[in-house]
Amino acid sequence: MIQDQLKTRVVGVDINVDATSCAVVDIRGNIIGQSGFVTSNYESIGDFISVLTEHIMQLSEAHGGYENIRSVGISIPSGNFRTGCIENAPNLPWKGVIPLAAMLRDQLGLAVALANNAHAMALGEQAFGAAHGMRDFVVVSLGSGMGSCIFSNGVVHLGADGFAGEVGHTCIKPGGRQCGCGKQGCLETYTAARGVVLTAQEVMSESDEPSKMRQVEQLTPKIIIELCNQGDALAIETFRRTGYTLGIGLANYASIFNPEAFVFTGQISKAGRWLLEPASESFEDHVFHNLRGKVKLVPSSIPDDVRNVLGASVLAWEVKEYSLFK
Amino acid sequence: MIQDQLKTRVVGVDINVDATSCAVVDIRGNIIGQSGFVTSNYESIGDFISVLTEHIMQLSEAHGGYENIRSVGISIPSGNFRTGCIENAPNLPWKGVIPLAAMLRDQLGLAVALANNAHAMALGEQAFGAAHGMRDFVVVSLGSGMGSCIFSNGVVHLGADGFAGEVGHTCIKPGGRQCGCGKQGCLETYTAARGVVLTAQEVMSESDEPSKMRQVEQLTPKIIIELCNQGDALAIETFRRTGYTLGIGLANYASIFNPEAFVFTGQISKAGRWLLEPASESFEDHVFHNLRGKVKLVPSSIPDDVRNVLGASVLAWEVKEYSLFK
Amino acid sequence: MIQDQLKTRVVGVDINVDATSCAVVDIRGNIIGQSGFVTSNYESIGDFISVLTEHIMQLSEAHGGYENIRSVGISIPSGNFRTGCIENAPNLPWKGVIPLAAMLRDQLGLAVALANNAHAMALGEQAFGAAHGMRDFVVVSLGSGMGSCIFSNGVVHLGADGFAGEVGHTCIKPGGRQCGCGKQGCLETYTAARGVVLTAQEVMSESDEPSKMRQVEQLTPKIIIELCNQGDALAIETFRRTGYTLGIGLANYASIFNPEAFVFTGQISKAGRWLLEPASESFEDHVFHNLRGKVKLVPSSIPDDVRNVLGASVLAWEVKEYSLFK
Amino acid sequence: MIQDQLKTRVVGVDINVDATSCAVVDIRGNIIGQSGFVTSNYESIGDFISVLTEHIMQLSEAHGGYENIRSVGISIPSGNFRTGCIENAPNLPWKGVIPLAAMLRDQLGLAVALANNAHAMALGEQAFGAAHGMRDFVVVSLGSGMGSCIFSNGVVHLGADGFAGEVGHTCIKPGGRQCGCGKQGCLETYTAARGVVLTAQEVMSESDEPSKMRQVEQLTPKIIIELCNQGDALAIETFRRTGYTLGIGLANYASIFNPEAFVFTGQISKAGRWLLEPASESFEDHVFHNLRGKVKLVPSSIPDDVRNVLGASVLAWEVKEYSLFK
Repeated sequence: MIQDQLKTRVVGVDINVDATSCAVVDIRGNIIGQSGFVTSNYESIGDFISVLTEHIMQLSEAHGGYENIRSVGISIPSGNFRTGCIENAPNLPWKGVIPLAAMLRDQLGLAVALANNAHAMALGEQAFGAAHGMRDFVVVSLGSGMGSCIFSNGVVHLGADGFAGEVGHTCIKPGGRQCGCGKQGCLETYTAARGVVLTAQEVMSESDEPSKMRQVEQLTPKIIIELCNQGDALAIETFRRTGYTLGIGLANYASIFNPEAFVFTGQISKAGRWLLEPASESFEDHVFHNLRGKVKLVPSSIPDDVRNVLGASVLAWEVKEYSLFK
Repeated sequence: MIQDQLKTRVVGVDINVDATSCAVVDIRGNIIGQSGFVTSNYESIGDFISVLTEHIMQLSEAHGGYENIRSVGISIPSGNFRTGCIENAPNLPWKGVIPLAAMLRDQLGLAVALANNAHAMALGEQAFGAAHGMRDFVVVSLGSGMGSCIFSNGVVHLGADGFAGEVGHTCIKPGGRQCGCGKQGCLETYTAARGVVLTAQEVMSESDEPSKMRQVEQLTPKIIIELCNQGDALAIETFRRTGYTLGIGLANYASIFNPEAFVFTGQISKAGRWLLEPASESFEDHVFHNLRGKVKLVPSSIPDDVRNVLGASVLAWEVKEYSLFK
Repeated sequence: MIQDQLKTRVVGVDINVDATSCAVVDIRGNIIGQSGFVTSNYESIGDFISVLTEHIMQLSEAHGGYENIRSVGISIPSGNFRTGCIENAPNLPWKGVIPLAAMLRDQLGLAVALANNAHAMALGEQAFGAAHGMRDFVVVSLGSGMGSCIFSNGVVHLGADGFAGEVGHTCIKPGGRQCGCGKQGCLETYTAARGVVLTAQEVMSESDEPSKMRQVEQLTPKIIIELCNQGDALAIETFRRTGYTLGIGLANYASIFNPEAFVFTGQISKAGRWLLEPASESFEDHVFHNLRGKVKLVPSSIPDDVRNVLGASVLAWEVKEYSLFK
Repeated sequence: MIQDQLKTRVVGVDINVDATSCAVVDIRGNIIGQSGFVTSNYESIGDFISVLTEHIMQLSEAHGGYENIRSVGISIPSGNFRTGCIENAPNLPWKGVIPLAAMLRDQLGLAVALANNAHAMALGEQAFGAAHGMRDFVVVSLGSGMGSCIFSNGVVHLGADGFAGEVGHTCIKPGGRQCGCGKQGCLETYTAARGVVLTAQEVMSESDEPSKMRQVEQLTPKIIIELCNQGDALAIETFRRTGYTLGIGLANYASIFNPEAFVFTGQISKAGRWLLEPASESFEDHVFHNLRGKVKLVPSSIPDDVRNVLGASVLAWEVKEYSLFK
């Protein structure tokens, strides 16, 4: 069957609690067009899918034509790549297990792949970002929680039940801070957003030193990072402690897994050297001795506003083209 | 080890009998700069490597700096990916088994990967071309010879001895045309350059019909293709027969291997529909019945002048970064 | 979750046109118990599954207990490993697409994997037979038809549509013998049972030489093999021709695929040296020159009566354990 | 090339500090013959290889003939699978980097594969033991140190530098017990032999309760296990604490990696339920909540005296047959 015209574009969709973003992306990761809408406006999954379908179709028509779209990839919290379902997402409006990929495929007549954010992000970093050319690496996201995705021998490691990568819920301090997951001492209670703020409060209470942090009513990691950049000693100490703990967590990860690199994404990673320098020092102190100086800590090289849609576009290529007539 | 600056470019090198071409290529397959020289000027492999080294260094300096180059990939006839050697290349000036990858690495201080043209080309088509998103496919080159490269389950199939893909030397007609390899009836004696010309001569001798082919002293596939485009019946008949035979050869390939697509490259594939239409018809007639209408025949979507350097650049990413200090 | 007692046995099931055979097999491929029944007694798939379920349960109880069985593997003509369905099996009593694996799983409460015979057989040869330790090899069955299964890089190559391996329907002689598939000149019209008998008839008609074959009313490959062993010249000539054609077909296969070995199973392969010697000679004459002397032609090392159930048992381990309570 | 007689046996070699053990093993993991000698008798690696060569040849001759041996696999501490070298083994007599696989191959004329114990052991458990049928699992050895080997997607995960699996040197308690590696608080300072004895001493010093442990001059894990079996409360408390800490370490491992099972080997694992019950309880308390009740903790199902030679025999099959004449 001669086929002169292969489809050379896909749609990447990033669904998160606040916003849903769609992009038409070509084979080389160029964003041809992008649009979005507010996720939480649609409490019924059926309504959401209708709106999403319309967005994808309009965006595609506006950028090269729907007939040129090969498939769709979705990055979504609690997405299960193996089943194409969202499974009990705690922060999304739709409860239970929802076969989103199949439902959207039936609307669009296009193949749809789906995965959680960390997985999609890691595919993006491998195809177009900091992990290009690596076979064994970890992408770590440090935001409101801490998640990760592992690649082993060049392919994603999902684990026996699809839950691999939950480094945020490794126990870094038995009996330590209370985590939302019900356990105590989880790594993310020190290294994700809420944990950083808590550490800042500890730092302030332990010292008399003046700090602009004391004047802020609602501290956020973003503010603390800004204060670091202004030279605020307690803000810097906050990230020094955060980095120290992060360094231990990653050292343990590395001692078990021996990745070539950890690639960082997420708002906390914006702290840059305030976080990475103490993290690196602590990492080298705690990692298996033969790995000292060998594991790279690198920031993502993909801009924030396209990281997830780009990752989702890579995901789109992993699914076979769909046709009613096969 | 914090690493702010990852190397984001590689050098792709295409060495063939006539010319050697080098390109600085980024992660997304953009050619940043390209240059070349005449291969056959250098009879000693040492001299060749010196000149190649100089070219790569100058080109890199001119396009973002040598310190930004991660590694080098080489596409070369008779290249063995597993050993990094050229092995008894019949048409290159350097005889025997030559560890070209290791020799160049020692000159450059950069990791060097090496593979034969078909392999490099197929990597390029998978990363940036017509095979993007496919897991089981074949790239076929139809030029002075006929070669191919197979991908199985998303990765290259090299075979037990690294010789997989030699479809040009499958026997399509026991006792048929004499092949340069010593056997008779090899597929490429009908489908590669010399074979097409021979078929043209047969076509002319069997008919009294006028044809511009009769006036050409030194027939080439390129001329025959031009004459097809002008409507020359015997030229068209030449490619009809070529396509018929090609269709049988590919049908047998497909019945065994069941690829999603054959992607065509090389000067003979420039015949376009004059070749592909009869090939497709013959293919459907001869393929295992369950595969009828399922296997795509598609031309490469990468321009000729960058196909091999682009493929070589993908190859470059497959090798680990090299450092003297590890 | 402490688990002292892992399940260490599986059930391998071989379903063919005449008989269905079940075996309890341990991790190391020891057949603990075996039983069977007549397939064609059950025209309804529901009845068949009921009887099969009962057989599996009784056999398991008799050999270590049902609670010790981990999972079930099924080898069946036209079985699709990816879907667990039998798909339009021409010779089985049950028509259309039948989700046999899912249906049996629901009866047994055990995970069930399913594949076609060639696939199951090849798994068996890799785990316990002649292909142990090989990464790129082909298992060829020569019986009433000719089929094959390919392993690439250590894993099965099923192809884009799951039809890989149909070497029996490669065209060895354009316009040649009529095949049941509708095409002409298919390899299996020369190398499978009916083809061998046809060749014997041709051999007899072309010669005046006496032969015991002339006295046999209903020639079969088995009889011809016996006559070869008795020194009957025309019987030997029959297999010489068969081997010659087989050699070309396999040489083409090898030139494309470069396997380490072809492993032979099936009644025709019982001809042993009468077939393999001329096949090997023809193979070496027709294969890509760099492969001469490199590709092994080997008979299966697993006894006929357990080959398929053993292969099916290996298949059983490829599926995850099933539990209602997950 | 017809090959009637494939080689159906390999030699597995287990080299450890005290003893070297060799076994002739068939395809199904049956030990045909076994012999051994004292490792430390040979301070020169040349002498050691001479003796090993002689042992392998004699053993092979005594059990089916040397000509029937396909290849050799070696399990050895600090063995690097990728290079075939022993690399700076702290406890073996031979210092530096030694290309043992190549040296032995040159003596024997047979292909030789080499890996560290954990890797070999894990291959054995996958082929013939508790991990049969699993794709994502971890084999943990608890002896004088604590090591592990990871399988991801059915294949071994060695990591970017080949050091994956060093869970014994993850930091379980910042500033905790001094480890021989130079760091403090490594998991193996609590869960390997020396750590268990240290815990016993702590338990005794913290309590006035009588215990037979108090009468033992040179406590060993073996003695403590015996006392557990006799109902000694402080011995039981010793393993309760060991299990608690082990449970946290494994929970963190599992939260990151999500294996189907941990398979335990080594002298400490002989403690059985005294160790596994508290380990399991602690594991469930500390693991990522979605994995509760899902990860199996299982003892190895292969006898101690053949585990490593059996694993080494599986390794032997991973290397290509060697021949001088290729």
